[in-house]
Amino acid sequence: MPLMKSWVASANDPETHFPLNNLPYGVFSNNGHDARCGVAIGNQVLDMAALETAELIRLSNAPVFDLPYWNDLMELGPETWQALRERLHEFLREDAPERAQVAPHLVPMADVTLHMPLVVSEYTDFYAGRHHATNVGTMFRGAENALPPNWLHLPIGYNGRASTVVVSGTEIRRPLGQIKAPEAENPSFGACERLDIELEMGAIVGVSTQMGQPVTVAQADQMIFGYVLLNDWSARDIQAWEYQPLGPFQAKAFATSISPWIVTKAALEPFRTTTPERERELLPYLKEPGPMLFDIDLAVLIEPQGAAPEVIARTNYNQMYYSAAQQLTHHASSGCAMNTGDLLGSGTISGPEKDQRGSLLELSWGGKEPITLQDGQTRSFIEDGDTMILTGHAQGNGYKVGFGTCSGKVVPAPSFP
Amino acid sequence: MPLMKSWVASANDPETHFPLNNLPYGVFSNNGHDARCGVAIGNQVLDMAALETAELIRLSNAPVFDLPYWNDLMELGPETWQALRERLHEFLREDAPERAQVAPHLVPMADVTLHMPLVVSEYTDFYAGRHHATNVGTMFRGAENALPPNWLHLPIGYNGRASTVVVSGTEIRRPLGQIKAPEAENPSFGACERLDIELEMGAIVGVSTQMGQPVTVAQADQMIFGYVLLNDWSARDIQAWEYQPLGPFQAKAFATSISPWIVTKAALEPFRTTTPERERELLPYLKEPGPMLFDIDLAVLIEPQGAAPEVIARTNYNQMYYSAAQQLTHHASSGCAMNTGDLLGSGTISGPEKDQRGSLLELSWGGKEPITLQDGQTRSFIEDGDTMILTGHAQGNGYKVGFGTCSGKVVPAPSFP
Repeated sequence: MPLMKSWVASANDPETHFPLNNLPYGVFSNNGHDARCGVAIGNQVLDMAALETAELIRLSNAPVFDLPYWNDLMELGPETWQALRERLHEFLREDAPERAQVAPHLVPMADVTLHMPLVVSEYTDFYAGRHHATNVGTMFRGAENALPPNWLHLPIGYNGRASTVVVSGTEIRRPLGQIKAPEAENPSFGACERLDIELEMGAIVGVSTQMGQPVTVAQADQMIFGYVLLNDWSARDIQAWEYQPLGPFQAKAFATSISPWIVTKAALEPFRTTTPERERELLPYLKEPGPMLFDIDLAVLIEPQGAAPEVIARTNYNQMYYSAAQQLTHHASSGCAMNTGDLLGSGTISGPEKDQRGSLLELSWGGKEPITLQDGQTRSFIEDGDTMILTGHAQGNGYKVGFGTCSGKVVPAPSFP
Repeated sequence: MPLMKSWVASANDPETHFPLNNLPYGVFSNNGHDARCGVAIGNQVLDMAALETAELIRLSNAPVFDLPYWNDLMELGPETWQALRERLHEFLREDAPERAQVAPHLVPMADVTLHMPLVVSEYTDFYAGRHHATNVGTMFRGAENALPPNWLHLPIGYNGRASTVVVSGTEIRRPLGQIKAPEAENPSFGACERLDIELEMGAIVGVSTQMGQPVTVAQADQMIFGYVLLNDWSARDIQAWEYQPLGPFQAKAFATSISPWIVTKAALEPFRTTTPERERELLPYLKEPGPMLFDIDLAVLIEPQGAAPEVIARTNYNQMYYSAAQQLTHHASSGCAMNTGDLLGSGTISGPEKDQRGSLLELSWGGKEPITLQDGQTRSFIEDGDTMILTGHAQGNGYKVGFGTCSGKVVPAPSFP
């Protein structure tokens, strides 16, 4: 598919993340107006609440865009999602008959504040990147036990904390917690000293299921509304002490950042690709009826206080061993009810090479091999004042379907009250 | 404190769970009316929405009782909680001046349907009962590794799934999942064969915190609105295969039942008791400034299809090693934002004796020692048609502050679509 031309000139730039092919969904505010739904097009935001008020679009009896989240639109279901996308294409294509009516409802992106694009119902994080699981397993349990026995049979996941999922740009306060050095007899309580990122994609569930109702992988793929970049901030020292036997808890609970624009599954369709060949045959309920991953180039950047941002890792979403659809099927398999607004983290996305690793834990090999930045500084883990940035896009023929960025600046830990 | 007498005669029965000393909060519907807030008094339910409409009570500008949850009342904060309790005592005490105005708003409990009393924001489950942790650890990891090294230093917890927290009386569909017998080379997918309960108390967070804002144990205790009985249904065979390295996931995601009445912390104040002596000194942030547990007698009953219910275990909430206030402090310690409606499961409550164990896993010692019921049937785990019932109360001088029951009947697993 080539670039689809728009009358919004900036949307035709081959470098923009937001051409007419994309049309991602966010929530914005400007000029003292309340936060409401908007669509990114080039360097502009289309004010969906204004379009609704002007009766240029109406998808249900109740307004769904004059709200600070996309959940109500999601609840209308996949047919409405498609109708919306088709209507937006009509509004914004080069020869749009409604150009004159739509144009007044564009707001320069430079003038808006972006907010969380959805209310996260619940947040689940997976561990489905093979290179990451192998790297971390090697560090924590030794090379011979790197992949747990269940890893090749199911997408391992755990429930995360929805209350601290925040939008890109939110400052991240260094967490406090219990830490025990390997040689220490007792733990101490204090600021995390091994603060890390995890480069992930987040899949957003748009369609709910009933309790006790499993779904197939094909059904699960239809239930997914879209994808965001996701940074699963991690306190490695807190994690190492707490995670046995019931998994990560406070090491992950303090913050998870997502990019402000939900890139719809529809926009990603041209970039579908397959999960890798199975080393062990999957059980039938997890088998994919077609390609369920997406070819999305990803990068991690670090921007130390006062320095320029620089790339420290590049990888691709196609490195996942399990797709989001497989994860969702496994999640619902027990009868777990899934809800509109559920967020599924992919697991850290690392490639096979050293500069393709999606966490500092892997990049610095547990702190033993600090990375050196362009100005000579080194990093094993994140320092106060560092801004960590994720970015990603699918590369089309002369255009990108991009996610923008997902960033967070780390600020010092609080004192205990 | 003696029994506080009410003009509602059934509330003065020394065996009722709902005397004037209690006044627990629930949500009910009857006669085709929508679900709304009610208070249990003897064998009656006081219709709080009707009292609000009749302007007998008004706690904020917006109505807070004509809603199918207590969250809005909780958000008004501890001073309002106390004002409500005082007003209810005025309405219902033996010599209440407003008896004639209040009496028409009582509904017989036998005529109502009870619903979830709150919207659960997020659900966290802990592992803070020492006898349970020792028993399970012995079975899973051997007696020498029974208690993980961190257990005596922090309340181990993991995030559970809020979407499947259901009210007592909801049928529980046996979950599907991946199961691997120890001797099998590969897992299979099918119905759970080792379905279990966990007897727990649930603490309900009433006051929110901001992200990045830890709280002391004293503050945490003030934030707790009340307590319910909680059954953390568990699929032991799914759990055994999935839980390493990131903890329980689908083994717990299919259902968690709670009792319909929230017993307020205020009603439990006369029953405060201390956590046991510490084997290892706790870090300062987890030390309790006073008694934070409650003396609550608990029992587990089984009611096989067509048989009478019988008690299979008795224990007490005072067996916990960590209090809910300590758990909440630990939960917020990293900077994790806590919200009104968060539900914290205590962890399974087992006593030191065999007939004091709060799960079938422990009662049947992993299935090796099935228990025998009065009619000669045996049980290692739950069979389809069994109803599992939790009950509990604090025993006062001539009265009980009770939780009613938390029950669920197990029905056969679904077929995969």
